[in-house]
Amino acid sequence: MSSVIVFLDFFGIAVFAMSGALTAGHKQLDIFGVLVVALIACLGGGTLRDVILGAHPVIWVANPAYLYVGISAAMVVFVLARFVSLPLRTLEVCDAIGLAFFTLAGLQKAQSLGHSADIALLMGLMTGVAGGILRDVLCNEIPLIFQREIYATAAIAGGALFLVLQGLGVAGSVALFLAMATILVLRLTGVFFGLSLPRFLLSKP
Amino acid sequence: MSSVIVFLDFFGIAVFAMSGALTAGHKQLDIFGVLVVALIACLGGGTLRDVILGAHPVIWVANPAYLYVGISAAMVVFVLARFVSLPLRTLEVCDAIGLAFFTLAGLQKAQSLGHSADIALLMGLMTGVAGGILRDVLCNEIPLIFQREIYATAAIAGGALFLVLQGLGVAGSVALFLAMATILVLRLTGVFFGLSLPRFLLSKP
Amino acid sequence: MSSVIVFLDFFGIAVFAMSGALTAGHKQLDIFGVLVVALIACLGGGTLRDVILGAHPVIWVANPAYLYVGISAAMVVFVLARFVSLPLRTLEVCDAIGLAFFTLAGLQKAQSLGHSADIALLMGLMTGVAGGILRDVLCNEIPLIFQREIYATAAIAGGALFLVLQGLGVAGSVALFLAMATILVLRLTGVFFGLSLPRFLLSKP
Repeated sequence: MSSVIVFLDFFGIAVFAMSGALTAGHKQLDIFGVLVVALIACLGGGTLRDVILGAHPVIWVANPAYLYVGISAAMVVFVLARFVSLPLRTLEVCDAIGLAFFTLAGLQKAQSLGHSADIALLMGLMTGVAGGILRDVLCNEIPLIFQREIYATAAIAGGALFLVLQGLGVAGSVALFLAMATILVLRLTGVFFGLSLPRFLLSKP
Repeated sequence: MSSVIVFLDFFGIAVFAMSGALTAGHKQLDIFGVLVVALIACLGGGTLRDVILGAHPVIWVANPAYLYVGISAAMVVFVLARFVSLPLRTLEVCDAIGLAFFTLAGLQKAQSLGHSADIALLMGLMTGVAGGILRDVLCNEIPLIFQREIYATAAIAGGALFLVLQGLGVAGSVALFLAMATILVLRLTGVFFGLSLPRFLLSKP
Repeated sequence: MSSVIVFLDFFGIAVFAMSGALTAGHKQLDIFGVLVVALIACLGGGTLRDVILGAHPVIWVANPAYLYVGISAAMVVFVLARFVSLPLRTLEVCDAIGLAFFTLAGLQKAQSLGHSADIALLMGLMTGVAGGILRDVLCNEIPLIFQREIYATAAIAGGALFLVLQGLGVAGSVALFLAMATILVLRLTGVFFGLSLPRFLLSKP
């Protein structure tokens, strides 16, 4: 079980770093820019969570292996992208797995620090989506997550389900599995059917 | 007195959340984007202040009611904007009240943590304006506050007046009232007369 | 020796504040915007480092003199720019000195807090370049550092050299001098010969 969690953790870091590298690549950044954007995409959410909760040392200061995984994943994309066209759908499926894992990891970290259910849910959401928001801000784009098919909604629904199951006394690993599956299914539904949330409409004067 | 302060605090949160929701709305964000931008607009200044001062738990982790007020205010705007054209002037008056209250609340929090007058003044300013700056950065705009009629200047003037009155031994509630009135009057003068600060001019080569 | 360090510290703050003021000026910000961007350019890197490491009080809360130096330098640029055309090359040379000093100051601060070599190197880099990144994000630009001739590379090379010399038992002041000289020479080579890192290339589908 524990080795599955370690695998998912590094897997999430790697795919989020790849999404950062690709976004930076579309802006024609140099390799340093690509690495910075990739690291912020994969570690920004966890860093923001830890800094706001005052949970020092932050995740990658405590364990620099996260940095090396993120840098390696970004380098792979930097090199590969010169030769092959990366399949967007594959990346979106990986990203959905990363979202599911990060959200629940962030939620559980906040709980382990003694925070209430609402703060834990928000911290899970922040861990899952803040990296992507910072990535887009750095690349001078309005965050994709604010405009895209069901993304944060999936994270919120999965996080809330986990809290409900936990409240009902369901075993931790079962609750975790069901919550992650919920996030994955909702997010992939969004990807494959192009579902979006209602947009803000201004009444015409 | 204390219930007035609680009211002003939540009132400030609500109007800043509304300003965030409207800015996000002009960018056609979806409802999740609107909520995130609204929360960052109303809580970003206080969060940044608390994180920089190392004052954990940060304001809304200590009291999640702030989150609910911000979310509710943004939802009201999200729904209302479909039906009515929101009066800009009304919002700007509310925003001026929020600015006045947030600036002095931030200043006093820094003082209560034992910081000197200059750091307290800067923290008051940060509490009042950083949310609006982050809101605009997230929406991919140059912050309005950097280009607008007297805004930060009003906050600085009111904060400085409070420190001077305090130094002269004036009673806290009187100093607070005069400082808030100063911010309000200066800011509304800016709104209604369109006054601006001098811009940066480059000499032509 | 120690007075040289204090001088370099304030010199770095001043030149980074000037770079912020000039960037803000090109965007026609008002004087408040110019001051905020200047302060974030000169203090953003150190603030981010201290907040991530949980090293409170952060640098300018501990010593507000940094604020006054940054504000003064920005005001000088704000006034001077109306009358004279500022020589870009001079500014870039000053900026290179600031980069060299900030990188090594940040690296040594992280070491003094007991962090490992890789985290110290990253913190040095962050101290040297994060202010410039935040400056450009606030001005709604893709960070120049992501697209420019050798900049971060110079900081990384100098920081790494310092760590190697330290590991070899070279005296601290000698290692410091050689590392700063390396950053300066590399950065100025980039400036005067227009060298750049390879950009991200996408294979054409």
